[in-house]
Amino acid sequence: MFLNDTLALWSAVSTPPLLATVAAEYSPIILSGVLLTLVTIFIASKIGSEVAKQLDFPPVLGELVAGVIVGVSALHLVIFPEGGLAATDSLLMTALQALNQLSPEGIETVFESQSEVISVLAELGVIILLFEIGLESDLRQLKEVGIQAIVVACVGVAAPFAAGTAGLMLVFHVAAIPAIFAGAALTATSIGITSKVLSELGQLKSKEGQIIVGAAVIDDVLGIIVLAVVASLAKTGEIDVTNVIYLIVSATVFLIGSILLGGFFNKAFTSIVAKLKTRGNIIIPAFIFAFFMAFLGNAIHLEAILGAFAAGLVLDESDARDELDELIKPIADLLVPIFFVTVGARADLGVLNPTVPENRAGLLIAVFLVVVAVIGKLVTGWAVFGIPGVNRWAIGVGMIPRGEVGLVFAGIGAASGILDKPLQVSIIIMVILTTFVAPPFLRVAFGESVETAPPIESTSE
Amino acid sequence: MFLNDTLALWSAVSTPPLLATVAAEYSPIILSGVLLTLVTIFIASKIGSEVAKQLDFPPVLGELVAGVIVGVSALHLVIFPEGGLAATDSLLMTALQALNQLSPEGIETVFESQSEVISVLAELGVIILLFEIGLESDLRQLKEVGIQAIVVACVGVAAPFAAGTAGLMLVFHVAAIPAIFAGAALTATSIGITSKVLSELGQLKSKEGQIIVGAAVIDDVLGIIVLAVVASLAKTGEIDVTNVIYLIVSATVFLIGSILLGGFFNKAFTSIVAKLKTRGNIIIPAFIFAFFMAFLGNAIHLEAILGAFAAGLVLDESDARDELDELIKPIADLLVPIFFVTVGARADLGVLNPTVPENRAGLLIAVFLVVVAVIGKLVTGWAVFGIPGVNRWAIGVGMIPRGEVGLVFAGIGAASGILDKPLQVSIIIMVILTTFVAPPFLRVAFGESVETAPPIESTSE
Repeated sequence: MFLNDTLALWSAVSTPPLLATVAAEYSPIILSGVLLTLVTIFIASKIGSEVAKQLDFPPVLGELVAGVIVGVSALHLVIFPEGGLAATDSLLMTALQALNQLSPEGIETVFESQSEVISVLAELGVIILLFEIGLESDLRQLKEVGIQAIVVACVGVAAPFAAGTAGLMLVFHVAAIPAIFAGAALTATSIGITSKVLSELGQLKSKEGQIIVGAAVIDDVLGIIVLAVVASLAKTGEIDVTNVIYLIVSATVFLIGSILLGGFFNKAFTSIVAKLKTRGNIIIPAFIFAFFMAFLGNAIHLEAILGAFAAGLVLDESDARDELDELIKPIADLLVPIFFVTVGARADLGVLNPTVPENRAGLLIAVFLVVVAVIGKLVTGWAVFGIPGVNRWAIGVGMIPRGEVGLVFAGIGAASGILDKPLQVSIIIMVILTTFVAPPFLRVAFGESVETAPPIESTSE
Repeated sequence: MFLNDTLALWSAVSTPPLLATVAAEYSPIILSGVLLTLVTIFIASKIGSEVAKQLDFPPVLGELVAGVIVGVSALHLVIFPEGGLAATDSLLMTALQALNQLSPEGIETVFESQSEVISVLAELGVIILLFEIGLESDLRQLKEVGIQAIVVACVGVAAPFAAGTAGLMLVFHVAAIPAIFAGAALTATSIGITSKVLSELGQLKSKEGQIIVGAAVIDDVLGIIVLAVVASLAKTGEIDVTNVIYLIVSATVFLIGSILLGGFFNKAFTSIVAKLKTRGNIIIPAFIFAFFMAFLGNAIHLEAILGAFAAGLVLDESDARDELDELIKPIADLLVPIFFVTVGARADLGVLNPTVPENRAGLLIAVFLVVVAVIGKLVTGWAVFGIPGVNRWAIGVGMIPRGEVGLVFAGIGAASGILDKPLQVSIIIMVILTTFVAPPFLRVAFGESVETAPPIESTSE
């Protein structure tokens, strides 16, 4: 309603109609749909994250599960026109239709347009999330934990990727592209979840904690490169070695280049921010940079999130960084849940119903992925060398939670159809389970003593 | 690119296509378009607001003028498919088409979808702006300045509305609906601009300053009721007294009801916020409330912004208010400029070219509107009674700047066609000029002494 509300006035006033699109006629109702969907998403995300918090699980998992509940698997409040779903399948759209006395064609137009808007908002949410993760990542911390973190990260990417892809192809006879995609989804450790859990255990500053966080940071970068490689690979429909090399090189050049040019960008950013005297003097230049890098990441055939992550890494070094951290939080708090809830909402858990014979393969795959995901990260503890008495179990367990980047893969799978539904849902289950088991396992791995340690305040989920 | 990027993978993978819409095929390019347009809007808004600040004008005017420059009047970077404009008219779309080798039909689909997304973002921006204005408005302050502010506000609404509407109908032979709409656009004083200018003059806490701010707050409410009444009026195409009464009653009941129930909402909000322990514990409940009230405002045939404003007024009383004020700022800083820049971008200043004979009426109207707008507010100073020695000139001049709500009217006019183009642009020129003249006039009205007064820090534009 509002600007667009009055677009409906065309019919009432005696000026010639100037609208080019049929969709614009329904704009007020599209905005109504967007507002109702956002309210639903926000309520779901808050209930989900609070319940998860009460149960001592990461809040982000609660948002995902809440998304499953309001989505296509259960309540049918937040659904998308994929998989042949229509407006009549959505309770919100049915309510809007009754409220505005719309024709069946009219509500379909509204449904498709509002879904497009919610999808773009979710994409802006994940762009902002990766920008924030980039800001939270610390290049200098990496250099201190150095070679240990790099080895742990590389083993933690290679082992589950190789075992997962090979197992899916050899045991489950999955085609190469979806097998590689699912294998890639096993790679990235969640820096947010990992650092949050460590801080809750008071282990963030321990030797093991530093290696885990350092490796999780590298993992994040590797995971995004793997994501870009795999997603671009899938575009060609086959494994094109030249393309893989091009992508690895361009991803590396893009990231390293951004970081090397970071000094220049930082000086420019800091001096621009210092000169600006109106509201938004920090946040608007930061988002100009983040959104432009996101656009650029796409333009060179990588991903928008890679650009946003690079932008975050670069501005991480900026003098205005602390202020930017504070300012980006409410924006991320508002937009990021749209991404997680819609990822959950798109996941059709109905395919895991074991009474349907064709679903049983999906359940087997989920069990296989969870086992590979856990063992593939546990072994990283034994890759650590040169530190006597290091708690190898703690490091291995600390690398287990997947979270954001794993969900990003699942989200891409859900939206694109690279992964069939059982495989998509298996990945989501893998992400949920690995993240669920990490907190209690970490508590055990670090020993009983930490249970009485006071939690260190952390701002990250 | 990202979630939707991979929607384009449909063609590359061997699963059956599940997409319901043609638009989804172009989703990655739609996101590219949205990112590029947002970057353009942000750059324009920042340059505009900084230049305005340098020249001692309110930053919001700079954003509007910058919008005019990037919009349909000049650079053709940010345009909308109204008035028969196509993707080929947009420089950004032409660049996207070349970059992605799109067909002419493809780029039109992208143009229409990304315009829809930008329009919704602009609408969310103005919803958030009015929510913020509601939060900034202070019911208790109103009670202190009391009857004086109410009289000034009522005279300041009635005088320019009556003179403007009557003049347009009698002198310029404008039809009733657009004349009433344009007259209504003359009513609302900009609380943001007014309080900012007063604070810069160090007069925010003076007797005159308190009356001006109090009256501006009431004006804001009256202006929004007038907006709702006029917009709803226009839907029926004629003046329906029953409808007007219904709207005045429902607007009043909605606002007063929200405020009376405010105590309940406040307690509920405060206790919910206190119980929440995850990120977004304040901002998400606040936006659930604001967006739901916006939806409700529309559902009872008022406006979304009225609901958002009421939500702001209610939460203004909340214990969490100071924190909420801080958290909403970066969100508003990011989304509100999208509204102002697109309002400017939609305004086709070409119709004011005096060498085109049919444009001359528009210029005459603009001169008339400016004169009525200034005189209609100046007289309010003489409506003040019972305060000996009050600076009547200062109060009258302080009520002159229009700003937000005036631009909202212009935006509705631009989007809806209730106002023909000369009338739309005349309103924008009226808003620009009244806001431009206020700061220097106020300085003169308060006398030379205030020029040396230290400015009080104000967070409002």
